[in-house]
Parts: sequence; C-alpha cells; structure tokens
Amino acid sequence: MNEPTCSWVKTVHLTPPSLSNNTADVDRLIDTLKSALDTDHIRIDLDLIQSLPALVRQGEYHLRCILFKDGPQWLLVGITTGRDDRTVAGIAIDLGTSRVVLRLVDLAAGSVLGETVMDNPQITVGPDVLARIHYTDGLDRRTELQQLIIDALNTRIEQLCRNCHLTPTDVYLLSVAGNTTMTHLFMGLEPRFIIREPYIPAVNRPGVQKTRDLGLMVHPNARVLIFPNIGSYFGGDLIAGILFSGLHRQEETGILVDVGTNAEVVVGNHDWLMACAGAAGPALEGGVSQMGIMAGPGVIERIRINPETGRWDLGTIDDQPPRGICGSGMIDLAAQLFLTGMLDIRGKFVESACADRLKKENQVYQLVVVPASRSASGQALTISQADIDSLIRSKAAMYTILETITSHVGITFNDLATFYVAGTFGAFIDPEAAIAIGMIPDLPLSTYRSLGNSSLEGATMALTSIDAVDEIDRIRDRITYLELNVNQDFMNRFSAAKFLPHTDHSRFPSVVIPGKNAVGE
Amino acid sequence: MNEPTCSWVKTVHLTPPSLSNNTADVDRLIDTLKSALDTDHIRIDLDLIQSLPALVRQGEYHLRCILFKDGPQWLLVGITTGRDDRTVAGIAIDLGTSRVVLRLVDLAAGSVLGETVMDNPQITVGPDVLARIHYTDGLDRRTELQQLIIDALNTRIEQLCRNCHLTPTDVYLLSVAGNTTMTHLFMGLEPRFIIREPYIPAVNRPGVQKTRDLGLMVHPNARVLIFPNIGSYFGGDLIAGILFSGLHRQEETGILVDVGTNAEVVVGNHDWLMACAGAAGPALEGGVSQMGIMAGPGVIERIRINPETGRWDLGTIDDQPPRGICGSGMIDLAAQLFLTGMLDIRGKFVESACADRLKKENQVYQLVVVPASRSASGQALTISQADIDSLIRSKAAMYTILETITSHVGITFNDLATFYVAGTFGAFIDPEAAIAIGMIPDLPLSTYRSLGNSSLEGATMALTSIDAVDEIDRIRDRITYLELNVNQDFMNRFSAAKFLPHTDHSRFPSVVIPGKNAVGE
Repeated sequence: MNEPTCSWVKTVHLTPPSLSNNTADVDRLIDTLKSALDTDHIRIDLDLIQSLPALVRQGEYHLRCILFKDGPQWLLVGITTGRDDRTVAGIAIDLGTSRVVLRLVDLAAGSVLGETVMDNPQITVGPDVLARIHYTDGLDRRTELQQLIIDALNTRIEQLCRNCHLTPTDVYLLSVAGNTTMTHLFMGLEPRFIIREPYIPAVNRPGVQKTRDLGLMVHPNARVLIFPNIGSYFGGDLIAGILFSGLHRQEETGILVDVGTNAEVVVGNHDWLMACAGAAGPALEGGVSQMGIMAGPGVIERIRINPETGRWDLGTIDDQPPRGICGSGMIDLAAQLFLTGMLDIRGKFVESACADRLKKENQVYQLVVVPASRSASGQALTISQADIDSLIRSKAAMYTILETITSHVGITFNDLATFYVAGTFGAFIDPEAAIAIGMIPDLPLSTYRSLGNSSLEGATMALTSIDAVDEIDRIRDRITYLELNVNQDFMNRFSAAKFLPHTDHSRFPSVVIPGKNAVGE
Repeated sequence: MNEPTCSWVKTVHLTPPSLSNNTADVDRLIDTLKSALDTDHIRIDLDLIQSLPALVRQGEYHLRCILFKDGPQWLLVGITTGRDDRTVAGIAIDLGTSRVVLRLVDLAAGSVLGETVMDNPQITVGPDVLARIHYTDGLDRRTELQQLIIDALNTRIEQLCRNCHLTPTDVYLLSVAGNTTMTHLFMGLEPRFIIREPYIPAVNRPGVQKTRDLGLMVHPNARVLIFPNIGSYFGGDLIAGILFSGLHRQEETGILVDVGTNAEVVVGNHDWLMACAGAAGPALEGGVSQMGIMAGPGVIERIRINPETGRWDLGTIDDQPPRGICGSGMIDLAAQLFLTGMLDIRGKFVESACADRLKKENQVYQLVVVPASRSASGQALTISQADIDSLIRSKAAMYTILETITSHVGITFNDLATFYVAGTFGAFIDPEAAIAIGMIPDLPLSTYRSLGNSSLEGATMALTSIDAVDEIDRIRDRITYLELNVNQDFMNRFSAAKFLPHTDHSRFPSVVIPGKNAVGE
C-alpha cells in the first residue's frame, strides 16, 4: 500500500583526486554518499575498505553502492563498479510458525523476482510455539532449532535464486518478520522466559545483523533486518502488518486484527497506537473440530444453505471432493446454520430444523456436513456440538478483545474507519459470516479490508523503501501495549458474547435472526 | 595532560521485570544505559544478545558493561555480572615504523598495568615506509606484511597480559596510533597510492573495527580504535599527539612539532588548527653521518666543549664507552662546534679552531669526535664536512617549514605560547642546542615542552577517557592541511636558513656568535 520512495542501490560519481583534493578513497566515497543521503553517519565494513582502492580506480570513480540503515546509521553493505549491471537482490521472509514464505526482490527496481513457500522445518520438533520452547528447555537445543530453520532457508534461497538466474551472493539484504518466538529461534536466542511469567523476551529490537553471524549463505557482507516486537505475544509479523496497512499514518482511527490461535489487535491512527493480544482458541484455525484441517485441496471454504429449499452448496479448494473444513469454512458453516435456524442463539443444534442431518452418538450431537457418499474419504464429514461450542468460545473471545481495547481507548466500533484483517487466514474469512455469528462488529462491509500476507508485504517494504525502514522502529516505539486482564469486566463481556450474535442483538442490526427459534430444541 | 573523565566500564542495576513492566532483557539493559549515558544510540552484538537472558538472571539484574564509542553510536562490547571483579583491560599501541610500544591499561581504574616495546617486525622487509610500500607493489604481499605485525602483536599481548596475571581475553578495547602507512599495513589496506601522486590513502577515518576481523587474539567481541589521519603524510600518531598535548583546547596559539625524517607540524588553538608535513632529511634521526646510529647504550647524547680550555665532555647512554652518535647528539655537537668557533656561520670547519682534531682524507675534512684510544670499537669516531652539511640542510628545512606555516596563518614565532616537541626522538633534543644552530626559533626555553611518546599517550587517553574519543574525530576534522609548495618563496627561506643560526642573526638574539670567525677558514 506504499510506493518505494528510494532504492537501497545508489550509483555515485566521485570527483577524482588531485594534489589539491587528496581525500582518501573511502572518505571520498563516504563524503559523496553523505551529501547524497543527507546524513552524517555512514559505516563501512573492513573488507570493503580493503577492496576499495582497486575498485574505485577500476570503475574510474563511478561506483554502485548497496546501502541499508540501522537506526541512525547508514551501512555501506556492498560496492561494485558503476558499469556492473548484475541484479542486486534482497529477500523478504515471512517467518511463520507453520509456513515460511520467501520473496526475492530486485533492490534497484523495487520489483518482485520470485517467491517460494515451505513448511517451517521446526514443525518436526513441535507444531506450535509452546512445544518448540519446551523442546529447548533444560538442554541447550536452541542451536539445533536455529540450525533447522537456517539450513532450510539456505536451501530455499539457493533454489529461489537459481530459478531467477541469480546466485545467493547476489543477495545483499534480507528482512525477516515473524512472531517473537520464531524470531528468537531464528537468532538462536533463549526463548524460555517468553512463556513464563512475567513473559520476557530476550530482545525487543533485534535490529540489523550480519547474515554471516546467523549462518545465512548469501553475500558475505549482507545484512538482515529482523522486525522488532512489542513483547512475547505481539511480534514482528504484526509490526510488518501495521507498516503495510498504513494504519499508523492515517488520520482516521482504524483497527488491525490478526486472527489465529492468538488474536493480536492494534487500534489507532497517526497520533497513537494501542495494541493487545489474547488467546482466541484454536477453533479459528480449524485445529479443533474432528473434520478441521488446514487449508488445502478439498477443504471446504464456503457454505451456502438455501433457507427455502434447505439445499447445501459447498465450495472446496480446487473443487476437489470434500475432505475437511478449515477455520474460515467453520465460520461460514456456523453462520449459515444460525441464519437458517439450525443453531439457536446459544449455539445449540435445533433438532427440528436440522432434521435427519443430526445424529446422536455417545450422547453427543453430530451434524452431517457431507454424507459418506460424497466425501473424499468415503466417510461422512460431521461436526459436533462440542466443535460448535469451541468455535463460539473463540468468536466470543475475539469479540471481547475487540470490545475491551476499543472501550479502553474510549471509542466505539462505529468510530473505526477501517477494519484490517491481517494474515493469510484472515484473507479467507467472509466478513458477512463473521458478523453473523458476532465475531466481529456489525460495520459496513466496505470497512473490512483483507491485507493478505501482510507480514511478507511489510518485510518486502523494508527492502524497497528507505522510508519504510525508518518507520519500523517508530511504529514499535509508538505502540502502547495493553495487558489484557481477565477480570470480572472481561468475563461479563465474554459471557454476553457467547450468544449468536450477542445477547444485545441491537449491536448487530444487519443480522436477521430466524423468526421461530428463540431458545429451544 | 588530561584526566580521564569517565570510564568505559559501567555498572548498572536494572529494575527486575514484572507483568506491568515486561520490556525484553536486552532492551531493559539498553534503556538503562541510554539514560545513564544520555544517548539514543547503543549497539549490541548478536552473541551478547544470545547470552544476556542467562547472565541477567545470574547477576540478579546487576551487570557490569564494557562500552566503547564509534562516532555517534555507543557499542556494548562486553557484559559480566555486577559481582565480577576480574580486571577489564585495554591496550594502547604506538605503532611506529621502527618501534612498537604496547601499554596495558585497567579500563575501570584508568591506570597503567604494564608496558612492552618491540621492533616493528616489518623491518625485515624494509627499514622505512617507502621500502615497505614498494615491497607490496605488484604482488599481493599486503597480507604478508599485515600478518607480520598482527602475529608479533598477538605474541606481545599474550606476554604483557601474563606478566600482569591477566589473559588476552581480559582485553576488550585497543587503540592504535601510527603513521598513515603503518596504519594501512596493520589493516591490510592497499598502500601503493600513498606514495604516488596525488598521494591518496585508502582511508582517512578507519574508525572502530572488530579485533577479530584483524586477527587480533583478545576478547572475541573486542574493538580497536584506529586513529584517523589527515593524509598520506600526516598520520594518526600526530592526531594522538595533538590529543595528548591539548593544543586544540587552548586559548593561546601553540605549535606541535614531530621531528624526524619527516617533520610534521601543527599550529593552532581552540579555534583553528593548521598542519603541514615536509621532508626534513634523515640527518635528524642520526641516519646519515658515518658514526650516526639509533639511540642505545654507548651512544653519545650530550656534548659540552669548554671554550676556555677546549676540553670535550661526552655523555653517553648508560655511561658506556662511546660507539656512535644519535640525532640529538648531532644537534648538540653542531651547536657546540659553532659556539666554540670550530664551525663558521656557513657550517664549514674552521681549520685554525679545530686544530689537530681536523684531518683531511680523500679531499674531505673529518673531525675526530672520539679518538681511537677511547672509543668502544678502538677506531676513531669522526664526523665529516658532508655530515655537517647534511645536518644543516635538515635544520634549515625544519626552520623553513616552521616559518612557512606560521607566516601562512599570519603569526610570528613570538605569538606562540607553547612549542610542543613530540615523539621519542623529540624528548632528547636540547632546545638550547637546537636554537643555537637555528633549527627552531629563539623563544624562551620555558616555551618548549617535550611530550615524550605522545602517540602512546594519546592512544592511552582513548582507553581512559570517553571525552578523548569524542575529541579525536573533532581534532581531525578541524585541521586544515597546508600543502607545502616548494616554490621560490620556500627556496629563499631555505637558503637563508642554511646559515648558523640564520643569515638574519637578529632572529636569534640569545645565540652569541664567537667574535672571530666571520667567514673564513
């Protein structure tokens, strides 16, 4: 959503030295860059100093410089002759707990050259943050986990470069946006205090590091910018998301929500930013219900139930025979069940409306979503009352968090000009369905904006815009973090939000509740 | 001449984290240091970030930090627990072309722990700057020369530490002051353009580097400050000398002179500094006359000739039998010969006055300084007319340089409040003798101040005073360098200065010229 304002690659012509102008080679270059960049502080590595005298003469005082910024200090990362037209590349990395996305960027043009996705290889020792931190406990297995991700990145970087007819030594800059734990494991930092009261990360602002020190096999002088975090539960991926959304530059107040096992929320405008994070429960990521799986071919992502005919229309990824349901599909399903009277306002199955789709097994209600005859596996795909209960707890937690943070800053939902939904998962949520079950406020649909992989987009901006890098620390430092206290107020709000869409129906005027099903079976 | 104002070692107590104060470990430390140091910019190495979570808890939030400064940025170089009372050391290095002096310093106390001297091992490939640069020509022998000095330093550092019951890993900071070529060879930089028109060094401001990158075996995170230079012929040793002298902070104008094969001169006060450098000739270093040698036992350093009795009194180093004469001894000898009428104002031997000390061999006059019977070698120590001529050219060059720079800035010698003589050699010059031959101006003797090894002293200040480090770049950047043009003006001045003490005797009122010897033999 931002345009690159200036590239990290800068070509300069130096005035050749003379008896009356005998400044040294390095200082001649630095002085020229200082006035071009309007700065007093440029740092150059020893090996560049060592190679410059030959290079400056070979290039006849015409040089191409690759720069980066670390706080107030500019870093001279690479130098070639001015005639060298070999691509100067960067790689933006979205370092997710489950998936890692790498994007190769042309630093001079600011354009994307290629992209690749891989599973985070640390999944082999634990699926989530908690399991991985516990794995490092007691023993020094930090290096092992760091090596897993670094090795996998090196392999992918090599492939990605090869596909674009480049080599890893063409890569001078990297940016990494991930949650606080992934960032710690990437840097080989002690993560154990992240999950123990009072929840202290090793570092909030990892800044710019040498890729060499981390074991990344790119250009030997390359640097990596690691996005800062606000704390153990509000990571660099969110800072990257804010950067990409532009929330921090807007006059009108907006909100950005990353929906997942944890819900991270930031509300604000160009004057202030307030953030919080809370557990929303795994139901939203499709991790709980018997048929819940991660997005992939055959996964149900869209459901429409015709209230007149009772006919179900299922949309699956790649139009494959259905084999499970993902988080956004669950929200769609719950919304449709509620809007057609098959769920009451407590979220309980309405026997009469569900008719023969409802079965009781071991005292638990199961609703058949896909009969055995039409599923990929040949077995019926069902959803239980417990699955629905879990989803409702998650949506209630989400709504309560949104209510708590907005009321804390003294605004109402109607004051929000934009409601950004971040993260890959967020991209698939249908706001209308999420409103129907009361997970998000009943705002005009045009208010909702999906950001896609905002973590990757923010990381890309750091490689294509000098201004963006300056903004990162400013965003971080402007955020006030609100510690969510699960107190009586929070519990009251949570209880009220556990209804569909809410005990106070007037909050959701757009949601038309089916006439008949007050509370009943 | 400066007192350390503040140490590089700082002990801090951190507020332990809590649920309401969950700043990360690193940022908690950095924030505390930022307010203690009144700065916005502190940089910490990756491996310190990696070790901090364990260390901060082991030290119960009480830490001892070793800091340094690189331009506007503070560097966090080392961290121990606050209870750790092991000495934190630094090493100041005077990197001379012939001799290298290392001084071990307690960084917390600012006190000197020990010192050691060695020959510069690069002497094996060439005695002087020119020979060493030519040695690197054509071939890449830079690494070889760098390795010679680095290996020798590592050996000496290990010995020096051991003698003081420390190990090299206790050494966190180093400072190196040397001339521009020695600095280049130390850093492995291309020196070939230093001696070729238009005389361009690779770098003027080498700044602070990681000792690891240079191959120095001290603490793995240790830093080395390399003193900046003004150009190929005005090096970091001179900047260190200015720092130590305090010339740049004084209200009254002073001058600082480093006397050697090259004469480097800086004149100025707290408002301005003007520098120049010129060839003074090797005679001043005792490198020319047949009996000229470097200072050492048995070397003649002091001569008195009684004008009444004609008796010669020789002072030798360590009172050993005489075996040669050093530069300062030559100045003393020439002054005494002139003041007793044995040299005329053109610097020619006066036959009548020299009497039987003068011999003619192969058409060249030789004056016997020490007869064969009393010399260490059993051979007479003599000095030729050519030796005297060479000394006079050197002293004339020095005086001309002093006259040129002062007249360039529009002052007379009498405007100089202080006349600093820098360098080890300068320490041994007797100002009275140097005035008598017209090498330096006829100022009150109290104006002259010998600085001793001002390069080492300045390097030491960088390790014991934060203010001193801030001053180094300020001194460098304030100096205006005057390129000495050997034009008609210069040659006229030089010709006039080739007399004893000068053609214009009124410039040297304190020098009483012997009545008889106008011009004649």
